[in-house]
Amino acid sequence: MSRTGRRPGDSGARRAILTAARSAFAANGFHAATIRAIASDAGVDPALVHHYFGSKEDLFAESIALPFRPADAAGIIMQHGLERAGEGAVRLFMSAWESQPTRDALLALLRGALTTEHGADALREFVGTALLVRIAAAMDIEDAEVRVALAAAHLVGVAVLRYVVGIEPLRAATVEELVVLVGPRLQSYFDG
Amino acid sequence: MSRTGRRPGDSGARRAILTAARSAFAANGFHAATIRAIASDAGVDPALVHHYFGSKEDLFAESIALPFRPADAAGIIMQHGLERAGEGAVRLFMSAWESQPTRDALLALLRGALTTEHGADALREFVGTALLVRIAAAMDIEDAEVRVALAAAHLVGVAVLRYVVGIEPLRAATVEELVVLVGPRLQSYFDG
Repeated sequence: MSRTGRRPGDSGARRAILTAARSAFAANGFHAATIRAIASDAGVDPALVHHYFGSKEDLFAESIALPFRPADAAGIIMQHGLERAGEGAVRLFMSAWESQPTRDALLALLRGALTTEHGADALREFVGTALLVRIAAAMDIEDAEVRVALAAAHLVGVAVLRYVVGIEPLRAATVEELVVLVGPRLQSYFDG
Repeated sequence: MSRTGRRPGDSGARRAILTAARSAFAANGFHAATIRAIASDAGVDPALVHHYFGSKEDLFAESIALPFRPADAAGIIMQHGLERAGEGAVRLFMSAWESQPTRDALLALLRGALTTEHGADALREFVGTALLVRIAAAMDIEDAEVRVALAAAHLVGVAVLRYVVGIEPLRAATVEELVVLVGPRLQSYFDG
């Protein structure tokens, strides 16, 4: 995550930008929201938004406290090779959900997607374009897009039953237990 | 689903009971909601609720237009044996979500679970007790509860990305394509 230019005293402007960004993405979706409108809403110059947060995609990621840059996801998942990408995907996904601020932001996103069409647009456009399409492109396998989407679906379902619904065996499981159980099923999608 | 005693003219009372049931489950959870309170809210005798809908569990299932009785789920999933339960689970789950009234009710349930604690209770208590625990009990495999919960998680995630978020390759897939792709991954949970 880009932290360039962060100084004590910046935090008010940063916070105002992140708040404006969350509203704009929820109200308009990811593609239709503009840095210009977010900057105006936060009372800062658009250049400052780019200076603090880089691209719109990185701004979205920071607005939900994602603990990695979207552009880095594929590399992190495959850091031990495609043959261990199942395990890598579980670990990366859980690293986001196990952090309380990120989890709260992800739950708010999901609530938004269930409540308004633009909320669904935001999640689809961000998850689809910034994450899944890119991860699929980095994997040299047939039908990569649908396989990566199904692996993502499995992880999303684990999050819903573990953190939202609270189904007992998933609520109680450790991350390592989930890696051992879910990893091989994701791997079987990536093995083709 | 029990249709005993249904006659023309019953539909007003039936509808009132289902509406009262939906509110009661959302407001109190599944266990804490009582047939007595639902009947009182609907302005009918509790005996009529039992007469129309059978058990509280069947009432819950009808209140979300579930196209099967919860007690029948395990049998339906394993109608071609445990070795084809993966395929059976995808088909049964998709039969519910592909029906528009059921899908709307399931999305309302999920929204309730994300919005209030009692909404989450209702979903957990119903899905956990009426469905997952029973399906796990019917499967003669080790760690059945966590494996069935993870298979359910995979399916829930497919529903979220297909129907809520609208991720393209999952939105466009046919049920048969999902059976072919997802079935084997669920099967590998059931194979232990």
